[in-house]
Amino acid sequence: MGRKNAFYAQSGGVSAVINASACGVIQTAREHGDIIDKILAGRNGIIGALTEDLIDTARESDAAIAALRHTPAGAFGSCRYKLESPEQDRREYERLIEVFKAHDIGYFFYNGGGDSADTCLKVSQLSERIGFPIQAIHVPKTVDNDLPITDNCPGFGSVAKYIAVSTREAGFDVRSMAKTSTKVFVLEVMGRHAGWIAAAGGLASDAQTDIPIVILFPEIPFDRERFLAKVDSFVKRSGYCAVVVSEGIRDPDGRFLADQGLKDAFGHAQLGGVAPVVAGIVRDGLGLKYHWATADYLQRAARHIASKTDVEQAYAMGKAAVELALAGENSVMPTVVRVSSQPYVWEVGATPLSQVANVEKMLPKEYITDDGFGITEACREYLLPLIQGEDYPPYRDGLPDYVTLRNEGVEKKLPDFEL
Amino acid sequence: MGRKNAFYAQSGGVSAVINASACGVIQTAREHGDIIDKILAGRNGIIGALTEDLIDTARESDAAIAALRHTPAGAFGSCRYKLESPEQDRREYERLIEVFKAHDIGYFFYNGGGDSADTCLKVSQLSERIGFPIQAIHVPKTVDNDLPITDNCPGFGSVAKYIAVSTREAGFDVRSMAKTSTKVFVLEVMGRHAGWIAAAGGLASDAQTDIPIVILFPEIPFDRERFLAKVDSFVKRSGYCAVVVSEGIRDPDGRFLADQGLKDAFGHAQLGGVAPVVAGIVRDGLGLKYHWATADYLQRAARHIASKTDVEQAYAMGKAAVELALAGENSVMPTVVRVSSQPYVWEVGATPLSQVANVEKMLPKEYITDDGFGITEACREYLLPLIQGEDYPPYRDGLPDYVTLRNEGVEKKLPDFEL
Repeated sequence: MGRKNAFYAQSGGVSAVINASACGVIQTAREHGDIIDKILAGRNGIIGALTEDLIDTARESDAAIAALRHTPAGAFGSCRYKLESPEQDRREYERLIEVFKAHDIGYFFYNGGGDSADTCLKVSQLSERIGFPIQAIHVPKTVDNDLPITDNCPGFGSVAKYIAVSTREAGFDVRSMAKTSTKVFVLEVMGRHAGWIAAAGGLASDAQTDIPIVILFPEIPFDRERFLAKVDSFVKRSGYCAVVVSEGIRDPDGRFLADQGLKDAFGHAQLGGVAPVVAGIVRDGLGLKYHWATADYLQRAARHIASKTDVEQAYAMGKAAVELALAGENSVMPTVVRVSSQPYVWEVGATPLSQVANVEKMLPKEYITDDGFGITEACREYLLPLIQGEDYPPYRDGLPDYVTLRNEGVEKKLPDFEL
Repeated sequence: MGRKNAFYAQSGGVSAVINASACGVIQTAREHGDIIDKILAGRNGIIGALTEDLIDTARESDAAIAALRHTPAGAFGSCRYKLESPEQDRREYERLIEVFKAHDIGYFFYNGGGDSADTCLKVSQLSERIGFPIQAIHVPKTVDNDLPITDNCPGFGSVAKYIAVSTREAGFDVRSMAKTSTKVFVLEVMGRHAGWIAAAGGLASDAQTDIPIVILFPEIPFDRERFLAKVDSFVKRSGYCAVVVSEGIRDPDGRFLADQGLKDAFGHAQLGGVAPVVAGIVRDGLGLKYHWATADYLQRAARHIASKTDVEQAYAMGKAAVELALAGENSVMPTVVRVSSQPYVWEVGATPLSQVANVEKMLPKEYITDDGFGITEACREYLLPLIQGEDYPPYRDGLPDYVTLRNEGVEKKLPDFEL
């Protein structure tokens, strides 16, 4: 087999380190120009492949590609677009293969979460059936940390660090103000299904820095009275309290709290604001003064406070994806393998995509304290290594010097395709 | 005059660098132990003085005091407590003097904003009338940047840096997602009266990093149609748009937008959430997908991304306060004097408190673009120096190693006082 081109795309919600994986893919592929010719990136993820909107990364300088390592979000654009199942409609998958054929693509690197692992698996299966060989490698990425087998998902460690740092800082703030003013600070964090990110808030408190923190996990049905009793006991003991609430908490009937609280002036429900709902419960139930914050994109884009461990692992996953391809592997995903927690030792592994697709890794029960409001030592031992180290981006004029690529397109060879 | 004790207190909303001022006060006073004996800090601000709840800072090690420089929030506790005017009720002012007498306090260092400058001035006036000499020095602090005369207020530069960095990062994020998902990101920032903090969001975009940003200043009445037209034009041009909105924006009738939008399940108005209101306006007016964040305390507590310039100036103000006292000054406030903007050269000055108290520095009209949605070059020239440099705290176990002081109390000598 002669030189082939590679295709790389970013999928789903972006993170502080998905570009570090892109950097690992492209730098490693560039080192093997005898085997991999061009790396073509999908503009806006898989949509770029379907619409033959391909970016020629060879037009980017080595310096620009190196700068991806310290640049947050998706440098080539991402998308939220789920392909139809090939059993129902093979049209999209066949189009992918057609585009790959037209551009002589032999390697498919797909950087995303569970859905994209599934897409990657199906591309590999179809290419085999059709007899056009594509090596499909999935590069793990999700701030939600819900992929199985791998120790953690690149992207998560940096969100965890951001939430832990922010909870500590806001905890110090509310402690200062509590005598006459705010006594409860509520921070809303991402994680609709699993409480990994909420759990990271618990790291803000440790033996040397005691901050009373109540965590509301999506795994635990919200119990208003028990929650208020917990907050009340902390405020009575310490004078103040921080609450870290997952956007995905539900009442005992399974309804999202975020969906039922707030209405705008027209009576429309406001989505994505569980922090003010929880703050209102504190006010109504305890009469305490509160402040609340909703970090939203800030938490997953915060490359300025990324975890060095996370950056290294994200880069390693991209690099390993190319090395797996060069070794002839197909339909696999590189993984982080934890060898030990104290000290944290990890190495790169790999797993078949069939083991990854459609499996969601939930927060284990033993990571949540018996009262349902905190993290256990086992959880702390799992999480702490993932936030170790700082990996500051360079600054220019007081601001992080993030790169914006040229993103020049490749000439199209095929007729248009209707999405 | 023999050795006297000094009193130091923190007032109002805390910041990422108010403790750096405390560090400057205490380290400088410790160097002049021949003149200043103990530094007693008010527990929870001026309330500590009124209730004779004084902290003996001599019990803190040099290392702990040095660590204040990199620790956010108020290490001795702050408060929101406005003294009665002495014309109406001299009781509180007389109590202050009584406590100062009982603890042999000759220096009053008060670290806060406009209200505390006024308190400081009145303490000085009363001590003169009573004939008990107190040198009252105000140490400037406010994230709102609304004190007059000084080039800027310590605390503001770090919030400005946080907002500029966060807007840039979230801008990169929404740009990645815009093809199929979020097109508008709304970030709510502090600044109820003046748009200084909102203006800092404009720094996220510059010649090398073009991000379409719409700023909603409290100085400009909110015009729904013009706002939607601006967002629409950015989204049509660039595919996405960031909106930085001050918590204090008002409709043309002068009503806060934050007060009219959201109601909880019981119909109670929810304060402090203008971001979801603005996001809802985007959704209803343009049908665009949005995300929103409310940074709240995170922005002012974010010592991890503090401006080095701000830290240096905060420390310098604390140091200068003591030096002014040692030079025999009374009823003054040290200031930052801007010598030039490019390069940024500043020196320490001083101003009589009578010039500071009850004067609010607003964002000049010439800092806002003609369309009311952006910052001018003049504004950029003013703001940019204030966010220069990073001053990272030390980390322990992946988290900033902030200090919590022992805060041991001094024995009371007076009868209790009813607040």
